[in-house]
Amino acid sequence: NNWKGTKRKMQITFDEAAAILNSQQELLILTHRNLDGDTLGSALALCYGLRQRGKRASVLIEETVPPKYQWLLEAYRPQPLEKPLLVAVDIADEQLFHAAEEPYRGQIQLCIDHHETNTGYAEQTLLVPAAAATAEIMFDLLQQLGVRITVDIANALFTGIATDTGGFRFSNVTATTHQTAAALLRLGAEGYTINRIMFETKSREQFELEKMAMDSMTFYEEGAVAFMYITKEMMERSKANQGDIEGLSGRSRQIEGVKVGALLKEKSSGGYKVSVRTGLSTDASAICAKLGGGGHKRAGGCDIPGTCEEATHRLLEVIRSEWNG
Amino acid sequence: NNWKGTKRKMQITFDEAAAILNSQQELLILTHRNLDGDTLGSALALCYGLRQRGKRASVLIEETVPPKYQWLLEAYRPQPLEKPLLVAVDIADEQLFHAAEEPYRGQIQLCIDHHETNTGYAEQTLLVPAAAATAEIMFDLLQQLGVRITVDIANALFTGIATDTGGFRFSNVTATTHQTAAALLRLGAEGYTINRIMFETKSREQFELEKMAMDSMTFYEEGAVAFMYITKEMMERSKANQGDIEGLSGRSRQIEGVKVGALLKEKSSGGYKVSVRTGLSTDASAICAKLGGGGHKRAGGCDIPGTCEEATHRLLEVIRSEWNG
Repeated sequence: NNWKGTKRKMQITFDEAAAILNSQQELLILTHRNLDGDTLGSALALCYGLRQRGKRASVLIEETVPPKYQWLLEAYRPQPLEKPLLVAVDIADEQLFHAAEEPYRGQIQLCIDHHETNTGYAEQTLLVPAAAATAEIMFDLLQQLGVRITVDIANALFTGIATDTGGFRFSNVTATTHQTAAALLRLGAEGYTINRIMFETKSREQFELEKMAMDSMTFYEEGAVAFMYITKEMMERSKANQGDIEGLSGRSRQIEGVKVGALLKEKSSGGYKVSVRTGLSTDASAICAKLGGGGHKRAGGCDIPGTCEEATHRLLEVIRSEWNG
Repeated sequence: NNWKGTKRKMQITFDEAAAILNSQQELLILTHRNLDGDTLGSALALCYGLRQRGKRASVLIEETVPPKYQWLLEAYRPQPLEKPLLVAVDIADEQLFHAAEEPYRGQIQLCIDHHETNTGYAEQTLLVPAAAATAEIMFDLLQQLGVRITVDIANALFTGIATDTGGFRFSNVTATTHQTAAALLRLGAEGYTINRIMFETKSREQFELEKMAMDSMTFYEEGAVAFMYITKEMMERSKANQGDIEGLSGRSRQIEGVKVGALLKEKSSGGYKVSVRTGLSTDASAICAKLGGGGHKRAGGCDIPGTCEEATHRLLEVIRSEWNG
């Protein structure tokens, strides 16, 4: 059921997507679980745009909204809908529906997305894989709909683009990405504030955990391997939560000379949950597979039982064996 | 001798700057000490552009080039010059000349800069304070000169913009900044590679310094103020260089609840060099001005004599007085 298969006929143009949206009076917009800035920002922008065009629209949002996205929802109020058209935004697969969306499986009429891996589950899909974010697509689509881009819409779209590009740093950034950002700033998007909220703000707990994690960094194999450790005791002492660990997995690999970096996180049930990150010369998924895990070429994960020393020893052993063929 | 004083008459237009450059056959381009991506990128772009227009040109670069900028110099070869026009690029003040530029004090004929604080030391100055980076100005100026933007020029300019905006994150970013980035990517700039080199790679020395700096972070005023300290001893122990300090100035301000953050760096001559970063509620330049320094609303700098305790005490005193009107 992959998009690249037989379902290409369902792929539609901006014109066709605009015509579908224009033909409806009520629209319910779905977002994916593990809410991020692109699904939320694109959905809100579409919702505000449709309302501006005289329609009734609401967004279905996962119950738990991470603190850094809450400001986007301050101005948003849902509207009750009777028999809306179902529009999925930035959702590559129905597997990514959150709980409240389960009843709508198999019923999505329009999907707007930039994921190459989109499974083609919707009746019609506006798919632009070259777009760094769905928000980039939404900016064009809203203009096609004759929507005036308000500051709220501009902020929502800028958030989507900034989030999905790691603040204009990932390899998906194109000239169009920067051009859309320029247009949104001209339309009043508060880029600096958004960047601060998305990338520059760290809770005190997160800071304390990061400090301890950096202190734990240990280099092996003449600096070609670096491990960072997060123990149960560190989690308690810093009062940090699971989400605060997010940004730390890649840290060890960023240090010059490090070919394999890993974050070893002590599990409450004992043993270690390990995230492995590698440079171009080493295959992270191969290392993790040997330890019962998996992943991609540059990022993988696995569980290793035992004490910190045992997990370290085992992981180093596998890395060396991977290097020595 | 501040720009805002009587010397405004020396400010010139793009047309006039282009005419001056066009009228010369030999040009020597000066960069500031504590080399960064903007002074180097803008200078190299100008140098390549002038050579393309049939002129002889060279760049005067500080002896120690931080590793992350060395790739920019791989293709660069100096040309011996006899009686060149002296052009300062991204240099706000002659105080920022590096050793090899000392002999040229009082002799600069043209300055191209974006620092509002430019002292007007040059005979003619093309000053665009609204530009996030001098590279932004240089992009327009080179086009005015009829220069074809090659990949080398595009990479140099993209580096300048990326560096001076912290990767499109600082408050100086405008629509023009993103628009220039879009144009440079279209012209072949390797944005992703540049971002990786600038923002994702850290030397071992930089890592060690960062670790120590994070350990030094101290909170005051119920967490509304945070200071990070870098002592001479820390510089020696980590083997870090001046360039490694760059990314650390903003760290303290990024922590939730911190309204004023500062980095206090012990000077070899004694006393502390202080970088102040503020949130929207506090004026950094006002704080620094009270201590004999200056800067912008969100970022300022000053020197404070005395011991670490004395500098801390003095800075806290000024912050409190700024808050209390």
